[in-house]
Amino acid sequence: MNNQQDQEKKLAFEDFKPGSRFELGPYPVSAEEIIAFASEFDPQPMHLDEAAGKASILGGLSASGWHTCSMIMRMFIDGYIGNSTSQGAPGVDSCEWKRPVLAGDTLSGTSTVKSARRLQSRPGIGAVEFRHEICNQRGELVCASENTGFFACRNEGDPQ
Amino acid sequence: MNNQQDQEKKLAFEDFKPGSRFELGPYPVSAEEIIAFASEFDPQPMHLDEAAGKASILGGLSASGWHTCSMIMRMFIDGYIGNSTSQGAPGVDSCEWKRPVLAGDTLSGTSTVKSARRLQSRPGIGAVEFRHEICNQRGELVCASENTGFFACRNEGDPQ
Repeated sequence: MNNQQDQEKKLAFEDFKPGSRFELGPYPVSAEEIIAFASEFDPQPMHLDEAAGKASILGGLSASGWHTCSMIMRMFIDGYIGNSTSQGAPGVDSCEWKRPVLAGDTLSGTSTVKSARRLQSRPGIGAVEFRHEICNQRGELVCASENTGFFACRNEGDPQ
Repeated sequence: MNNQQDQEKKLAFEDFKPGSRFELGPYPVSAEEIIAFASEFDPQPMHLDEAAGKASILGGLSASGWHTCSMIMRMFIDGYIGNSTSQGAPGVDSCEWKRPVLAGDTLSGTSTVKSARRLQSRPGIGAVEFRHEICNQRGELVCASENTGFFACRNEGDPQ
């Protein structure tokens, strides 16, 4: 397959239409991964130790919120961004850690396109606004977030 | 030192007054750390490879935005949260990745208290709203974010 065909198979800006939904996960969360991430970036007792987690308001060994966000990023990559013309993102509009993510949980969810527009300032690039909802294996919402991502357009000249 | 004295030395809700500022960093960012984080959570070319980073709009091997957030979390821990009565946080109100964080950068910054209030629903706990600004070694803002954190009160009965 030549490079042009490869590019054409990738999800481009035009594929992210309002209402489009992308499936995420499953992503199993291990105690080892929770502790490894927390040791490096967020060494608070409830993220490092089962007993301390149980004694906290989180109720068990629980992932750092930033670890949850990072795992969700990996779910985006495996779900659609890894096979897209992604050009990165300018930030996070909002992120709610609704419930603890505990060792042994399995995460899954969806990314839904809220809006999509071509950038006037950067021809060939479009901005896609997403809402992401991630649940645990009981279907309980653990994280809801919204952000905008940039994607290269497949056809530079088309109107949106 | 007994446990009570230890508790009294920790930063508690009462120490986070509107306008209070906490210094963060320095945190040196290595190419190895950027690639290790990206390999696990955000394997996009600009986070994995110097040449791909230079060819991207980011201009060099650049940290995943979630890696930047995680490094900043570590700066919070080392700056004040690690010596506090922190009870975690419900999410992120906003986060802007203003400039790329590149291999070789050194991050530093401040957390400033915007507001602080005791929770009616959880006696003994207060909510502190922060604005965080993180710069690189040239003083250029790389990340601005706002969030609320929960802290146990030192004196449960005091009015705020």
